[in-house]
Order: sequence, then C-alpha cells, then structure tokens
Amino acid sequence: MTASISPAVLTQGEQAQGQALLPSWNDGPTKRSIVDFVRRVTTTGGPQFVKLEDRIAVFDNDGTLWSEQPVLFQFAFAIDRLKALAPQHPEWKDKQPFAAVLDGDMKAVVAGGEYAIAELVMVTHAGTTTDQFSRIVQDWIASARHPRFDRPYTELIFQPMLELLAYLRANGFKTFVVSGGGVEFLRVWVERVYGIPPEQVVGSSIVTKFEMLAGVPVLTRLPKVNFIDDNAGKPVGINMHIGRRPVAAFGNSDGDLQMLQWTTDNTGSRFGLLVHHTDSVREYAYTATPLGKLDVALMEAKANGWTVVDMKRDWNRIYPFEANE
Amino acid sequence: MTASISPAVLTQGEQAQGQALLPSWNDGPTKRSIVDFVRRVTTTGGPQFVKLEDRIAVFDNDGTLWSEQPVLFQFAFAIDRLKALAPQHPEWKDKQPFAAVLDGDMKAVVAGGEYAIAELVMVTHAGTTTDQFSRIVQDWIASARHPRFDRPYTELIFQPMLELLAYLRANGFKTFVVSGGGVEFLRVWVERVYGIPPEQVVGSSIVTKFEMLAGVPVLTRLPKVNFIDDNAGKPVGINMHIGRRPVAAFGNSDGDLQMLQWTTDNTGSRFGLLVHHTDSVREYAYTATPLGKLDVALMEAKANGWTVVDMKRDWNRIYPFEANE
Repeated sequence: MTASISPAVLTQGEQAQGQALLPSWNDGPTKRSIVDFVRRVTTTGGPQFVKLEDRIAVFDNDGTLWSEQPVLFQFAFAIDRLKALAPQHPEWKDKQPFAAVLDGDMKAVVAGGEYAIAELVMVTHAGTTTDQFSRIVQDWIASARHPRFDRPYTELIFQPMLELLAYLRANGFKTFVVSGGGVEFLRVWVERVYGIPPEQVVGSSIVTKFEMLAGVPVLTRLPKVNFIDDNAGKPVGINMHIGRRPVAAFGNSDGDLQMLQWTTDNTGSRFGLLVHHTDSVREYAYTATPLGKLDVALMEAKANGWTVVDMKRDWNRIYPFEANE
Repeated sequence: MTASISPAVLTQGEQAQGQALLPSWNDGPTKRSIVDFVRRVTTTGGPQFVKLEDRIAVFDNDGTLWSEQPVLFQFAFAIDRLKALAPQHPEWKDKQPFAAVLDGDMKAVVAGGEYAIAELVMVTHAGTTTDQFSRIVQDWIASARHPRFDRPYTELIFQPMLELLAYLRANGFKTFVVSGGGVEFLRVWVERVYGIPPEQVVGSSIVTKFEMLAGVPVLTRLPKVNFIDDNAGKPVGINMHIGRRPVAAFGNSDGDLQMLQWTTDNTGSRFGLLVHHTDSVREYAYTATPLGKLDVALMEAKANGWTVVDMKRDWNRIYPFEANE
C-alpha cells in the first residue's frame, strides 16, 4: 500500500544534509530510506510532493523517543507517587496491588493484570487539579533517576530520534507525539526535551471536570478513564486531535501497528518506521515488555515496506550523554 | 480576577497598527481594549508580557466567528442531510423528529428537546467513514445557501473577527476554534475560511472506530456521543487538546462562560470578549436562541472586566461581502 522505496542514489546535497542533520545514523538502507522519503515529499512538482501544511509526522514515545526499560517510565512515576502517598493510606499495606508495589514486588503487580495497573494509575494520577498534577510530574521529572544509568529519565532519550525530529522540522514537517502514555504526564516535559509543544501531544487521558472552587476555576482529575491512545486508539486519537492523516509514523511495538497502517495507506508517498531494540549493551534487547510486544507490526513492516531500525546496527549513538563516535 | 484595563492612551504606532489591521472596528473603548491588551502582552520586559509560545487565543464559532441565525448552520446541514437520506428511509414519514423536519416544522423539532436534536444529529452525522463525512460536508458547504442572504454559509462570517484573527496572529498569537459544533464538520472549511488549520480546532465529537475494511484502514463514525465541547466542556476540551491555558477567549453566549472564566483567571494579563448581537438590520438582534442564551456571561463580563462588543455600535462592517464604509 505504501509506495515502495526507490533505490535511487542520493544527490551530494542530500547526502550532505543527511550527514549534517543525522550524524548518529549509520549509513545504510535505513538512513537512506529516511532521506529518500524526505526528498520525494519535498520535491516541488514531483509525483510524491506533499504540501507544507500536510507534512504531519507522528511519533510514539515509550521505546521510540525514549527508553522503556526496565519498566515504562510513567510506571516508575506511579510507583514513586504511590510511595509518597502511602503514609496517608495505612490500609494499602494489606491491599493489592498497593502492598505489592510498596514491597517492591513488581512481578506480583504485573500478575495482577490490567485491573491492578488501572487501579494503580487512578490512585496515583487522579484526585488533584490539573495544575497540581503538572507540578507533581515536574518535581518527579526533576528528581527521579533511572536505576541503571543513574540519570534523569529525560536523558534516556534517543539521540538519533532527536536528530530525526530536527531533520523533519527542517523540511517543513510538524511533529507530534502520539503516545499510549498520559497526555498530562507528557506535556510537562516534551516541549523542553523534544521541542514539541503541548498542543502537539496526543495521549491517553482520564476524565477532568471543570469546577469553581471558592471562586477559582479548576479542572479536577477524576478516577475514570477518558481515552486510551494505544493500538486502534492511536488512529482515533490522531483523527480527533490532528484532524488530518499523517504522512509519516514512527513506533516500536504492536501498539503502533494501527497508527502505521492508518498513516501509510493513502495516495502519494507515506513513511512508516519501527524501532527494533537490538542493543543489549548500550540500551536493551527485547521484542516484548510486560505491556506490549513487537510481533505483528514487524511482519507487517515487510508487507508494507516500512523501515525497521536495528538499533545496534543503525545507530552509532543511543543517548545524548554518550560521546559521539 | 482579570487585570483591569488601563485607560492609557495608545501610541501613534499602536493606533496606526490597530487602524490598519482592524479597519472594521469603530474607534472606542471596545477596539481600544483589544489594542491595549495586545500591547501589554507583547511589550518585552513589561509586567504583563506573555512569551510567544503562551500566546494562545481561543474563539467560539457559532455567533462569534460566523452567524447562527435563523438556525445554527450545522443544524441547517443536518436538515439538508436528512432530506437527502429520506428516500432510503420511508419510515421517517411517520416518525419524530424526522417527520417534523421533512415537513419543515422546525418548532416541533425544537419542542422535541435535546433528545430529538441528538437523534437528528446521529442519523445525519454517523454511519459513514471520516473520509466520506468530510466529502459530504464539503459538498454541502459548496452548494447550500443562507435563506436570508442567499450566499454560501461560509460568507456569513464576521469581517471584524477575521481582522482580529489576523491582528492577533501578526502579534504572535496561535489562534484556535473552540466550538460546541462538530469538530469534523468544522475542520472541512475553517482552514480556508479563517486560516485556522484542522489541528487547531477543538469541538464536539462522536465516537469513531478504527477498522480494516477489505485491507483498507478506515475510521467509522458511530452513533454515540464522544464529547460535548460546550459550557463546562470547553475548558475540558481546551485542556485536553491544547494543554495550556489560553490568554484570550472570545465568545457570544453562556456556553462560552466557563471558557472565559478559565482563560481570564490566572496571573498576568488575560482578555475575555463577548459578541453581543445588537444589529437587527445588518445581522440579527437577540440574546437567546433555541439552543442557548447570553445572560449569566453578560453579568459576569462586568464583574470580570471582559469586553462586550455591541455589534451595531462597534462594527462598521459585518460581513466581508459588504462594501466597507
């Protein structure tokens, strides 16, 4: 359905731009497919030219723009938040999934399934105003550290993807995050970290309610799911929020499958890309997490001509804090 | 709660810019309040300076950016759509509210209340894919004509508000539509008519469902309300979609009250404005429609220092097709 990628040799200018703007991408078919796509959609008068206003690119977050191991970073936030709230909730000592989290028994939490995770999310994400929640996330982002790398979570972002965001923007693309993560968790830091403004973030959400409290208007976060922006929810969220079909989509799991299908099925040139985590030394090597896997999407990649990044092979640098080779 | 508007005299440059960019606004306190607000939030180093990325302005649509008489234009669309579908639904001849619509008895439709209107909306807005619906709206917008002015509905837009949109954008504002109307009805034409791209439109919506139909990914519109972006829903929609609090809000009815409260309650300079329809000759004079009224918001305007436009007094031109005085 997507146009097959032409094996055309890149011009010197394109090679130079790709080199300058994508230095952490090794030369090879993966990088070439990106630069080639950008050339095709930006060539005025060309058969696959895309008008400036239609250059919409959507990026999954967990595992695509930043790491998601050993647990989803927002899950780490929920655990820390639960611990902070525990003194006010002595009953949690005897109640699952709270007791398991407080004991550090993550296997028991995950074994509790979706219901346990939903309970955990509600207790740690609802019950405040939106302004209060924003400050709570801000404080956590500023203080929490990744267990393996001992750095703030916002440093565990992928340098090649930062370059890709900049490269696309330099070519007139508007970049959006489309994440299964909570939209109000993401918005606190994505602008600073990815250069993507809050209004270009699509995510999962809980219900909020407008109230006047002592003459002050607030939005209160209720313990009720509003929207799950994952799997078949991603095209729905994209349509709801962006209102036009993207021309490029970037993901790393089956949760991104429908987003890639929706993006790449259309007239003209479209681009789909999956990040495959293959580097156990510099990052992690896996095809599944307790909350998702890369399986169907990887098979579909072949059928649809999507690009698959082999992190170990294709990226000469993973994180910004690594020295460039 | 909002800062009171200073009675400061505008500089010659500001007067000139206001004059050049807001020619359809008569001189007076209304126009002055707009130009004064823009000066305060764009004065670098000033006490009410607002950073470029926070210059978010939100506009209601029906009655604020275009007319809403004799019926909401989207309601006119629903009626025309029902008539187009009627041959496939002989049972509608004996069933309300459909029979009333087909007989042209709008009083009976409105008397049926919210339930009748919801039924009408679902039958005329659901049951297609998003792409099909977009084409249906496009065709209607291109062919339907306003009963009094005998012009396409998209010409019944307010020239002074077009100038205001341009004036704010010239001063670094990002402009959004925040409408009780259907988001997918609006997105088809707002970019061409207001210069506002689809991703800057917040509105009401029905549920959509992602499906693969014969290998083609589609979003099907289901007969189920997803979100009502009116009254207390407007701040919720703004927060969900934009993710930051606007600094300026423009409306014309009590349905915009909470949006104005949410916008103007904050530190620094904020701006709220209500359009009061007072011109029965050039447009319409009213404070209530069957679907809403301007009552509480008008009282709150005084208490909160919001600007109230008196159309007859403040606008020397209503529609773009009128000759400029």
